[in-house]
Amino acid sequence: MDTRTGLPVVGMVGGGQLARMTHQAAIALGQSLRVLAAAPDDGAALVVADLHFGDHTDLTALRTFAKGCDVVTFDHEHVPTDLIRALAADGVAVHPGADALLYAQDKRAMRERLSALGAPVPHWRPVSAPEEVSAFGDEVGWPVVAKAVRGGYDGRGVWMLGADDALPDVELILEKRVPLRRELAVLVARSPFGQVAAYPVVETVQQDGICVEVLAPAPGLAEDLAVAAQQLAIDIATSLGVVGLLAVELFEVDGGVLVNELAMRPHNSGHWTIEGARTSQFEQHLRAILDYPMGETALTAPAVVMANVLGGPPGGISLDERLHHLFATDPGAKVHLYGKQVRPGRKIGHVTVLGDDMDDVRARAARAARWLREGRASGPEGK
Amino acid sequence: MDTRTGLPVVGMVGGGQLARMTHQAAIALGQSLRVLAAAPDDGAALVVADLHFGDHTDLTALRTFAKGCDVVTFDHEHVPTDLIRALAADGVAVHPGADALLYAQDKRAMRERLSALGAPVPHWRPVSAPEEVSAFGDEVGWPVVAKAVRGGYDGRGVWMLGADDALPDVELILEKRVPLRRELAVLVARSPFGQVAAYPVVETVQQDGICVEVLAPAPGLAEDLAVAAQQLAIDIATSLGVVGLLAVELFEVDGGVLVNELAMRPHNSGHWTIEGARTSQFEQHLRAILDYPMGETALTAPAVVMANVLGGPPGGISLDERLHHLFATDPGAKVHLYGKQVRPGRKIGHVTVLGDDMDDVRARAARAARWLREGRASGPEGK
Repeated sequence: MDTRTGLPVVGMVGGGQLARMTHQAAIALGQSLRVLAAAPDDGAALVVADLHFGDHTDLTALRTFAKGCDVVTFDHEHVPTDLIRALAADGVAVHPGADALLYAQDKRAMRERLSALGAPVPHWRPVSAPEEVSAFGDEVGWPVVAKAVRGGYDGRGVWMLGADDALPDVELILEKRVPLRRELAVLVARSPFGQVAAYPVVETVQQDGICVEVLAPAPGLAEDLAVAAQQLAIDIATSLGVVGLLAVELFEVDGGVLVNELAMRPHNSGHWTIEGARTSQFEQHLRAILDYPMGETALTAPAVVMANVLGGPPGGISLDERLHHLFATDPGAKVHLYGKQVRPGRKIGHVTVLGDDMDDVRARAARAARWLREGRASGPEGK
Repeated sequence: MDTRTGLPVVGMVGGGQLARMTHQAAIALGQSLRVLAAAPDDGAALVVADLHFGDHTDLTALRTFAKGCDVVTFDHEHVPTDLIRALAADGVAVHPGADALLYAQDKRAMRERLSALGAPVPHWRPVSAPEEVSAFGDEVGWPVVAKAVRGGYDGRGVWMLGADDALPDVELILEKRVPLRRELAVLVARSPFGQVAAYPVVETVQQDGICVEVLAPAPGLAEDLAVAAQQLAIDIATSLGVVGLLAVELFEVDGGVLVNELAMRPHNSGHWTIEGARTSQFEQHLRAILDYPMGETALTAPAVVMANVLGGPPGGISLDERLHHLFATDPGAKVHLYGKQVRPGRKIGHVTVLGDDMDDVRARAARAARWLREGRASGPEGK
């Protein structure tokens, strides 16, 4: 407890934009998020009062950081589970715990566990020898999808392998290429008490393996499939004992959904909730890990679109001038900037637009994101 | 400009809850609010990274604080105008400026200026000698309202004077008691460019001179009166050259409205905008003082109610336990706590509820505020 306020202290390991936005939610709950950042120019390091520096793989740094925290949680999934177990053995409440987080860190363990639970996943196989790739490809058809068991994100750590391609030199699993209609995501939050709250199912639109847009609710998704997808996420959260947020990334295929990835933290597919849901994912994560009852997850408008803002080509007008122009063009666009240096392709922020018509809202969000990325409204396609 | 982000640095003098909530809005805009606090346990001091300490009446402290700020603004109205003029003479952009802020600091100057502008105000008179009180009371009827020219807030600095009462020993103005139907407020924001954006007119409900509830939009207010009230606030903001927010507190009387008070900062009557309007007053204030185009002011739901949370009687369950119970009772109530020590009668936070039916929303907000104040749902009236 913070003796000044009588309210809990939450420590978040990692100082990126997720910690930055969690701090905004913590402030409303009377708290001040404690952050373990790697560098002074981390997005959260620029804005939080209770700032600590240290390496997330250094147990001593983690122990020092955890002292005085009511709960420790994560901005990313890179803290080794043996360190999390050591903290828990010290008596620190760590959410999500190592037994759950393992499945967000290790794709092989995740696939094995989900298969054992009977959750729908793509046809897959672990690789222990190169000849197994040939056998798998001949069986399911080429190319096959190879995924690094650890450390992949935003399209990194995923390869399409043809029969003659060399294997990446990391531990891999293989998956059959899925003829997917689109990608969906379900976000749920679970408390230690066991309460689970699910957000509406969203569509995530990817380009080059990076999420560029999230549409809430997923347009045209049949109600029974939406309910089944939410139930699947609730079942996974419960079976794995997740405490906090669980984002379940899904492939929509003929006849249903397959689980693609799991994340156990505030997630890019949930940024729309800041304005678009009655309770933001950041507040919900705090409520979950503190064992507060969950907040309402209902949409605040019929159509909500979040578009990521990626760093654009160098040059052009400043980000500040871009903001001026965007605000003049669309007074209803909600902007979130992460305090990062602009580099081409880097996620530097996001924009959310709410309204009644999904096509209109989507066009506005895309235009707003393009303004911030390129400093002009028109792309090559003249839109 | 913050060289790390290329985005502006706003400095706010004063470290209370208004600075605390402005920081939340600044984070979304890629900024990190710089705060001049008086003490380490000020609400904003607990949560901001760029924290400075100093007295707001100390020019040296203000000058040091202003260095590197693109704009300096205020969490309260207590900075003497001669110090603001000195900062402006140094080249600091201070919004609102001294020529405008004067009318939020000095009720006599405000009444004189508004009268000169032809704005509707209660019948009033400055007092320079005690016998003028008798003359005024005999003319308009007893009791009369006496207001301290400077420094009053939350019911302090206001007296009802009978014919035989002693005068408070401060500079006063007198006002005729107005047979008011209710109190209203209009919030507008004005940029240096001159753009003005008005929020919907709200009803403010007072108890013992303290605002306890704000209903948005003001129930049953005729459209023409609402538009006239917004136009009045826009005209005042423009005439006084306000940059930033202007809250105009109004009395609704037979045949129209009268101006009660002016405030030039984020205002309690605008806290509902965090969830209840497309752009929160805190973001709007930042946009205004930075000369960004204004954000949309539309309501996000048909009925929005903000209820202040005052510190309750000592004892009972902890604030943290109260939060647990409240969240279990009403998963849609949005809570904002200011990080303050609980003292009876002190504003320690607020709650906002959104919905379709004003009576229902108002009952929920009142119940939520009572939970946080008293640690139980039922008041003496059993509601």
